Amino acid sequence: MTDRFSYLFKARSVALIGASRDANKWGFVVLKHLLNGGYQGKVYPVNPGEDQILGLKVYTSIAALPETPDLAVIIVPPAAAAGVVRECVGKGIKAGVIITAGFAELGGQGAQLQREIAEAARGGGMIFVGPNCNGIMSPWEKLYIQFPAFHVPPGPVAVLAQSGNVMDSLARQVMLHAPGCSVCIASGNEASLHSEDYLEFMADDPHTKVILCYIEGFKDGRRFFEVAGQVSRKKPIIMVKVGKTQAGARAAASHTAAIAGTDNIFDAMCKQSGVIRARSLDEMLNIGLAFLRQPLPEGRGVGIVTAGGGWGVLAADACAGLGFDVVKLPQETIGELDKLLPSWWNRGNPVDLVAGSTPDNIFKALELVLGCPAVNALVMLSIMPALRIKGFSAPLEPEAREKWGQEGVNAVVEAMEHFSQLALKYRKPVIVATEHIFASAIEETMITHALGQRELACYHMPHQAAEALAALAAYGEFLRRFSV
Amino acid sequence: MTDRFSYLFKARSVALIGASRDANKWGFVVLKHLLNGGYQGKVYPVNPGEDQILGLKVYTSIAALPETPDLAVIIVPPAAAAGVVRECVGKGIKAGVIITAGFAELGGQGAQLQREIAEAARGGGMIFVGPNCNGIMSPWEKLYIQFPAFHVPPGPVAVLAQSGNVMDSLARQVMLHAPGCSVCIASGNEASLHSEDYLEFMADDPHTKVILCYIEGFKDGRRFFEVAGQVSRKKPIIMVKVGKTQAGARAAASHTAAIAGTDNIFDAMCKQSGVIRARSLDEMLNIGLAFLRQPLPEGRGVGIVTAGGGWGVLAADACAGLGFDVVKLPQETIGELDKLLPSWWNRGNPVDLVAGSTPDNIFKALELVLGCPAVNALVMLSIMPALRIKGFSAPLEPEAREKWGQEGVNAVVEAMEHFSQLALKYRKPVIVATEHIFASAIEETMITHALGQRELACYHMPHQAAEALAALAAYGEFLRRFSV
Repeated sequence: MTDRFSYLFKARSVALIGASRDANKWGFVVLKHLLNGGYQGKVYPVNPGEDQILGLKVYTSIAALPETPDLAVIIVPPAAAAGVVRECVGKGIKAGVIITAGFAELGGQGAQLQREIAEAARGGGMIFVGPNCNGIMSPWEKLYIQFPAFHVPPGPVAVLAQSGNVMDSLARQVMLHAPGCSVCIASGNEASLHSEDYLEFMADDPHTKVILCYIEGFKDGRRFFEVAGQVSRKKPIIMVKVGKTQAGARAAASHTAAIAGTDNIFDAMCKQSGVIRARSLDEMLNIGLAFLRQPLPEGRGVGIVTAGGGWGVLAADACAGLGFDVVKLPQETIGELDKLLPSWWNRGNPVDLVAGSTPDNIFKALELVLGCPAVNALVMLSIMPALRIKGFSAPLEPEAREKWGQEGVNAVVEAMEHFSQLALKYRKPVIVATEHIFASAIEETMITHALGQRELACYHMPHQAAEALAALAAYGEFLRRFSV
Repeated sequence: MTDRFSYLFKARSVALIGASRDANKWGFVVLKHLLNGGYQGKVYPVNPGEDQILGLKVYTSIAALPETPDLAVIIVPPAAAAGVVRECVGKGIKAGVIITAGFAELGGQGAQLQREIAEAARGGGMIFVGPNCNGIMSPWEKLYIQFPAFHVPPGPVAVLAQSGNVMDSLARQVMLHAPGCSVCIASGNEASLHSEDYLEFMADDPHTKVILCYIEGFKDGRRFFEVAGQVSRKKPIIMVKVGKTQAGARAAASHTAAIAGTDNIFDAMCKQSGVIRARSLDEMLNIGLAFLRQPLPEGRGVGIVTAGGGWGVLAADACAGLGFDVVKLPQETIGELDKLLPSWWNRGNPVDLVAGSTPDNIFKALELVLGCPAVNALVMLSIMPALRIKGFSAPLEPEAREKWGQEGVNAVVEAMEHFSQLALKYRKPVIVATEHIFASAIEETMITHALGQRELACYHMPHQAAEALAALAAYGEFLRRFSV
């Protein structure tokens, strides 16, 4: 093993201390999910009172293990945790995940117990995730150490959350959106490893393209932002920070013993260090997906092309509200567009394609807008008329309907790949928001999945496109500070 | 017919002027969707150059129709529209839908053409929707006069949009969320009927429980808000207003010739007249769904119960940020909760259920919190542990997996009905946000559909629950102004 994080995220063997036969206990559930996830390394359940669980031999103690495992997963009552950590250290174990709760988040004696485990580990050169967390996922290694019953596939999105259930939410949303995760970490009370340590790992992890980060508070805010500023120069960090209000801060303190800090200062520090702040978990995901394949805009000029007037207005409002200039298109471009669009088109930006445009004309119109020097980014709305499909009326017969739906899904993917090629050609982001008017609810999930596998994102609403674009622009501005 | 709106939304016969055999023309598509929607009334296509379209006899002129139809749908070039309206008036037709674009949104000659059709109709006592719109849907009558290829089922949600594609988006989202629509209107340039006219209809329509309204500008802002203030006393109006920024206002002017007005004044007028403003179309829908079955809170005290610490923090932050008091629970309630929850629960609000709670205990805990006089509303987060299902691990065999998934869907519905019963019992809203951790993407759509059919809403994210609750609270405060 070349670095300390390999013991966690590339563990070749895992001991599970507190393994259980009781299907309602975490010591069973975590073991079962690890096995169901297809982990290829050695698994050693430890429990003095058991012989066999889920077909695996159970060991009576850590000392009794036939080798020193790379990773110890600890699910024992809080009062027993410090002793277990000392046994791990005694065995030479270098990394742990302490799932057990009941530490600093309770204050008083819990805080004392947490200090004990932290000291025991530090003294023995052991790092750990938690306590009071619900685990980690390292999908490229099929290493799933967590409570929830799903296994997010491997991909480019790293998730770091100071909350187990937020980690679950984010990981699951990334799974439903299909690109998959490089690593997911619920960091819990952070008695050993802190959020900034994980960021350092993610910065160098070759699988990670973008980092989603949910923060309740810091152990050492100064160090966090020093690290974040360095990491941001390599990869975008998108963050949701809670504790804006007193009620939220109080809740955070009792949840993971986090000190929330002042939100305005926090905001300034994010800007300084290139961290992109999102207002909600879904906005964070939407922004994260934009970073997977889009180039960064070199300025704040935006062109909007829309197949629906109302969506154009919504997008213009949202873009302008986020600091973009919805630029006036040059007369020459208007003239060229005149040749492509029906005579009653609006001759402005947003370019309203109105009814009657063909896919070929739409792609040509997009190129004309992208070719304007003042346009740094393009927002495309309502892609139905850009789809190469036969008519917009679904057949009523079930079999024909299914075929038609599948062709619609394929047409969306094709159009989105075309948009992506234009983005690369002009080195300007092309962000798409659309309804898939033809699609059933199930076909919508097929579209999301097919696009996600290609690391493409198609937003549901104009404001989401604008928010994603604003994040790309802010990140581009941050990077240009260092590119002199 | 008892009132002028019946000719539109309860039309017993429809003439389609400009009907076409060309599958790429609106004159064909609109006709086909009307027939596919199962409309039971008479349909009269009108086109001097055709004999038969889609199996229907085509009439050469309006004068040649065998009866006076209730409704005329007009899809002819803009220059021909005024003549058609005069013919309709000559036949005694009382209502129209003018889909054709190319009027005031272009200025100049278009504006003149629009004045002509408006005068011709007014002189003959005819009302019409549009021009420059893409139709109306009256699902309880199976009357679908629109471009997009779907038929939203009948239900309680009324949609009014000054944009065809926004109407489509909203109607389609209501369809995917299952409760269905009472009426959908794309009002276009509003040369005859204005937004406030439609609101008056919706206020008295027995099917409509809640009104979603997308506004780009007003013909007569004063009258709009007078009407809205009256309508709001009967039913909630939730509105997205665009044109906040100059770019948005410019886009709106070229889209439906709307004058956007000053946003701050607009905001004050919304508050005054009880109109609930949403920031985006999806927020509008989320808020609308909350009004279908939730009681209104009588104050701003909120209790939060969560099966995930992070979500509790997010919800506390969002609620406090929206003007709620995340109340301190009385010592007596804490004592009662102590008897139900594991010893290490946080003894605060949010009530963090932590691991190990049973459904029975969770429902009892909810009742304890709802019973506190200071609590006017409850936010419930992460309902997994409240589900009566066997374990959280999905079987790996496909058939067992499917059965397990269906049981999960049923368990969600059952839990949501239970929450709804508690809301009725205590006359306090119980708003739920949750991940369905066990569910596949397809099972998620099954859950959304099953809940929507019961007019229940389960939000994806804590901030959405807080936003919905804030709308219920604001509406309750508006109504109480008149209840003295």
